[in-house]
Amino acid sequence: MLGKIALEEAFALPRFREKTKWWAGMFATDTEKHTAEINDVGPIRLDFAERHGVGLQILSYTAPGVQDIWDAKDAQALAVEINDYIAEKVKAHPDRFAAFATLSMHDPQEAAAELRRCVTQHGFLGALVNDTQRAGADGDDMIFYDNEKWDVFWATCTELDVPLYLHPRNPTGTIYDKLWADRKWLIGPPLSFAQGVSLHVLGMVTNGVFDRNPKLQVILGHLGEHIPFDMWRINHWFEDRKKMLGLGETCKRTIREYFAENLWITTSGHFSTTTLNFCMAEVGADRILFSIDYPFETFADACDWFDSAEMSNTDRLKIGRENAKKLFKLGAYKDSTA
Amino acid sequence: MLGKIALEEAFALPRFREKTKWWAGMFATDTEKHTAEINDVGPIRLDFAERHGVGLQILSYTAPGVQDIWDAKDAQALAVEINDYIAEKVKAHPDRFAAFATLSMHDPQEAAAELRRCVTQHGFLGALVNDTQRAGADGDDMIFYDNEKWDVFWATCTELDVPLYLHPRNPTGTIYDKLWADRKWLIGPPLSFAQGVSLHVLGMVTNGVFDRNPKLQVILGHLGEHIPFDMWRINHWFEDRKKMLGLGETCKRTIREYFAENLWITTSGHFSTTTLNFCMAEVGADRILFSIDYPFETFADACDWFDSAEMSNTDRLKIGRENAKKLFKLGAYKDSTA
Amino acid sequence: MLGKIALEEAFALPRFREKTKWWAGMFATDTEKHTAEINDVGPIRLDFAERHGVGLQILSYTAPGVQDIWDAKDAQALAVEINDYIAEKVKAHPDRFAAFATLSMHDPQEAAAELRRCVTQHGFLGALVNDTQRAGADGDDMIFYDNEKWDVFWATCTELDVPLYLHPRNPTGTIYDKLWADRKWLIGPPLSFAQGVSLHVLGMVTNGVFDRNPKLQVILGHLGEHIPFDMWRINHWFEDRKKMLGLGETCKRTIREYFAENLWITTSGHFSTTTLNFCMAEVGADRILFSIDYPFETFADACDWFDSAEMSNTDRLKIGRENAKKLFKLGAYKDSTA
Amino acid sequence: MLGKIALEEAFALPRFREKTKWWAGMFATDTEKHTAEINDVGPIRLDFAERHGVGLQILSYTAPGVQDIWDAKDAQALAVEINDYIAEKVKAHPDRFAAFATLSMHDPQEAAAELRRCVTQHGFLGALVNDTQRAGADGDDMIFYDNEKWDVFWATCTELDVPLYLHPRNPTGTIYDKLWADRKWLIGPPLSFAQGVSLHVLGMVTNGVFDRNPKLQVILGHLGEHIPFDMWRINHWFEDRKKMLGLGETCKRTIREYFAENLWITTSGHFSTTTLNFCMAEVGADRILFSIDYPFETFADACDWFDSAEMSNTDRLKIGRENAKKLFKLGAYKDSTA
Repeated sequence: MLGKIALEEAFALPRFREKTKWWAGMFATDTEKHTAEINDVGPIRLDFAERHGVGLQILSYTAPGVQDIWDAKDAQALAVEINDYIAEKVKAHPDRFAAFATLSMHDPQEAAAELRRCVTQHGFLGALVNDTQRAGADGDDMIFYDNEKWDVFWATCTELDVPLYLHPRNPTGTIYDKLWADRKWLIGPPLSFAQGVSLHVLGMVTNGVFDRNPKLQVILGHLGEHIPFDMWRINHWFEDRKKMLGLGETCKRTIREYFAENLWITTSGHFSTTTLNFCMAEVGADRILFSIDYPFETFADACDWFDSAEMSNTDRLKIGRENAKKLFKLGAYKDSTA
Repeated sequence: MLGKIALEEAFALPRFREKTKWWAGMFATDTEKHTAEINDVGPIRLDFAERHGVGLQILSYTAPGVQDIWDAKDAQALAVEINDYIAEKVKAHPDRFAAFATLSMHDPQEAAAELRRCVTQHGFLGALVNDTQRAGADGDDMIFYDNEKWDVFWATCTELDVPLYLHPRNPTGTIYDKLWADRKWLIGPPLSFAQGVSLHVLGMVTNGVFDRNPKLQVILGHLGEHIPFDMWRINHWFEDRKKMLGLGETCKRTIREYFAENLWITTSGHFSTTTLNFCMAEVGADRILFSIDYPFETFADACDWFDSAEMSNTDRLKIGRENAKKLFKLGAYKDSTA
Repeated sequence: MLGKIALEEAFALPRFREKTKWWAGMFATDTEKHTAEINDVGPIRLDFAERHGVGLQILSYTAPGVQDIWDAKDAQALAVEINDYIAEKVKAHPDRFAAFATLSMHDPQEAAAELRRCVTQHGFLGALVNDTQRAGADGDDMIFYDNEKWDVFWATCTELDVPLYLHPRNPTGTIYDKLWADRKWLIGPPLSFAQGVSLHVLGMVTNGVFDRNPKLQVILGHLGEHIPFDMWRINHWFEDRKKMLGLGETCKRTIREYFAENLWITTSGHFSTTTLNFCMAEVGADRILFSIDYPFETFADACDWFDSAEMSNTDRLKIGRENAKKLFKLGAYKDSTA
Repeated sequence: MLGKIALEEAFALPRFREKTKWWAGMFATDTEKHTAEINDVGPIRLDFAERHGVGLQILSYTAPGVQDIWDAKDAQALAVEINDYIAEKVKAHPDRFAAFATLSMHDPQEAAAELRRCVTQHGFLGALVNDTQRAGADGDDMIFYDNEKWDVFWATCTELDVPLYLHPRNPTGTIYDKLWADRKWLIGPPLSFAQGVSLHVLGMVTNGVFDRNPKLQVILGHLGEHIPFDMWRINHWFEDRKKMLGLGETCKRTIREYFAENLWITTSGHFSTTTLNFCMAEVGADRILFSIDYPFETFADACDWFDSAEMSNTDRLKIGRENAKKLFKLGAYKDSTA
């Protein structure tokens, strides 16, 4: 399929090249290649896109990024630097690149203001945040955005009418020591990523974020970070807890309603037709978006799979492009590769 | 279907009646009814079984049980009390009840010895353990069994040729404060249970427990605690991590091989045909076992669903009874309800 | 779900009461009850609808109906009688009943003219035809509509912008003797219905009807009369036959394209979540429409299943009502039961 | 996967080379290549098998074969010739080739005797028959085997403990003229094949063949020739027809029971993971067998798909080999390619 839109696609700042290469050592077969790919916002990426039928890439700063910086000032400074950097890059290929804002999440007002600047001045399509914000004197605290304090931020998202992509980051601090240090192979895509994000987003659901901000749109990668698998079970227990125990005070709708009205899932890093079919049954094709997770995954793996995965033409178009066009109001988007 | 075998079925000690009732207040519509049901190992349960075609119930002590007791001596004493109590009860209805051993998991040798006693003297069919063992001076530590220290215990399981059911328990200590305190509605079935058990069992997989104990059989409830959903993604990343990063030293087989040779999943608390169909594709019907999760779920919900769920007759028999007969060597089992 | 729209719902002419009762003897448990139900276009049906959340019923004359009459004049006269009869009935409850035209299919021009009359004068929403038209001196011929002679009829459908429901009828004549006489239990829903309609509609596909009438919309009952099951296989062989053998001359698009652009399937008489999930993967939820097949199936069976079948809220609304509103341009439709 | 067993694999007699080439013109891209492949029972096939991990090929005479010969004597003579020919060929590679008997189906006793000869003298693993036997003075008759007259034949199958593969053949005679002549693109894999076989085998089901021969095993290609798609619907109507109308006199079990006890389906020519997943839910992995349909399909298409299709290891082994070993009692089979 030509003209696919992809939305979990990472870049890094070239000035962190050495750190990027060191980080790549934890998962990449070829750290040089990975570093070159993640630092490129031009020919490498455009060439892959051309060869694999990707029309538009919505770029975001690689995890853990600013969410790893527990000093609030440093975090904000880096966010601004990243946003201004990628805004320039995107301008050079406005029909092929777009961007999500990078945000320091120490303070809701500050995050809201930077989001507003990015959307109104740079034309960014939303924000991508890497799970909780690391904070505290020694970086052991985790700021969640699933409480009333963050309503000002969420209200800004809905006012600007842009979604937030809730991306994972690695466990840090006490949590790391308690749960992950002795089972390091599970950090990242095999387990910790999904556990972090599903906790965070279901916290938003049960703590009333979506009830107080009914138009808020949140995107989850990796086919929904395990949540679709338990749709029946979550629904079953939520409804019981509403009847008896007060959950209904903050969580007025059913889990299926939040998935129909506030949540989206992408195919990033989960190129399985069987799981996609399952998600089509439990979440519905209207809320599924194609994505790659480049350069942690390859264009070839994602696109070869998606282009030949058995599905109806209608759903392939929706998942590959049309849903994203609706979500991001890209009505005028014309795929130059098509 | 008559003669179903169910294996995540909880009982409590009557002497804890008040505590049981208080605990029930967190999730049960009718705490009196729940307390009566969980304390009964006789007429109430047998009547439900009769009416819903359950032939054999394998009983286990309710969570968090002994895993919540951080004093090692107290934990061991309670485990022994529980095992002797249920052994008596089961004897009265040997064709309708069986039991899993309750174990203090402070010390591998002690746990192995008590398991041996239960299997050889009481005829128990294995053990059910509630995730990590709470430990430490103030109960903030969590003992995982996914390291070499526990090989002596796992070796005993395989020597006795009995499986271990890895059941969830509630988060406690630092983990509770860091992750769950502010999103309490996610504790238990909606999220924390699956997150705890999937971390623990994938820790066993990646830390080599199944490679060092290739005949070990571990059972997971709730259709596999999210893991089947990510089978493709886990496999994809494990295989990459083996090639480059040394995971292959402790985890020699693929995730699909562990699921084919060492792991089982039950339907406890997850009565969804769509999810069951998905698990049949990803795990295979030979490794799926019917269960209820009584009295947290009802016989009616579980059995009405299972008996009428669309599936082949062969798989209904396997999942409903035949797989359990193989796993537990119940060749002689004749269903008295059939 | 309230306000469902159902579109394979049969009525008969009361003056054929005796024949209807005799026919009912071949499949109905209670022939009196069946006869009463199929002859009612009022309280019985409205009461069922009320109790089961059906807002709008699109009524059609029961099979084989006019397609069973091999005398062309008689056929046309009966069609007109039926259409005028049901138009009156529908008028009494315009928010609860609508109708498909009944057509004699002996002559394309005549069929087109009667369709036009029904749509423009009676406000019918399209037509329902029972497979091939019986014809010939002794009724042994079968008129198919999958050839160029029928383009005038199909052009009228697209000009009027109304769909045709291709409903089955029983085998008759030589075909009956050759294939069905000795295996009578397969006549109707178990096999012959699907075989007849799938042959007819795939004849339309391969003979170019949809290429010459690209806006034509055809509806198939019973989740697509077997075709979705073979989507991969049909596609595989059609594409090969296009490359080598000339199929591409009349059949320019892929089978998946015809399903995305020209065909719809309904749930009539096939209340299986597993099969529906499969169709959602192969056909897509945007092309699936709820239906019952009353009074051959019950409101209770269809609606209890559909209302509780596991699926996303979005797709339940689409399949239950929204897709039908789009197809039939029922934008102003307000469900009086909701 | 190495050591797969494939069982719908066609050969032709070299003396019919010209006819084979002419026939190939109806579907093959390269008629010379097709003719070479179908006439080879040696190096070409063995090389494909070697490269694609097929251990054992069970060979059968290509359709329509003997079922196309309406002269009973000619039919029997050709069957014997074919059987003796392939017996010789198979002997040369007993670990790589096996065979199904070719049978003239004009007379049950004669067919039974030839089957017995092939099984006892040549070691054939069963028979493959191409739907109805063409018969009558001008070849317009079709002999079905779904009536009591054929019980002597079915009894021989069960006595010899070998299955029959019910393979399709092209429509001929009146049926051809009435239904297929004007929609020729649907002849064969796109539609007519499945329609013929599903009628025939469901005729066997409803006419009591499996009740009178409860151990009879029949194999269907192409993932079951549409029947699994309608499992719910067939069951629903059969059970109703039993209650009221007498179907229960000849068809005592449910359709699901026949599929669990008497029927098998193969993947021949239907390389779709979505459809396979569906069949695993409706038929169960224990009754599904890998097959290719060579040389009408390629080893590459079938094996590349099957080897990488997402499924549990257990089911891949079962479908790929273990089920076939059970069905054909190939306990001693050691895959020389593994």
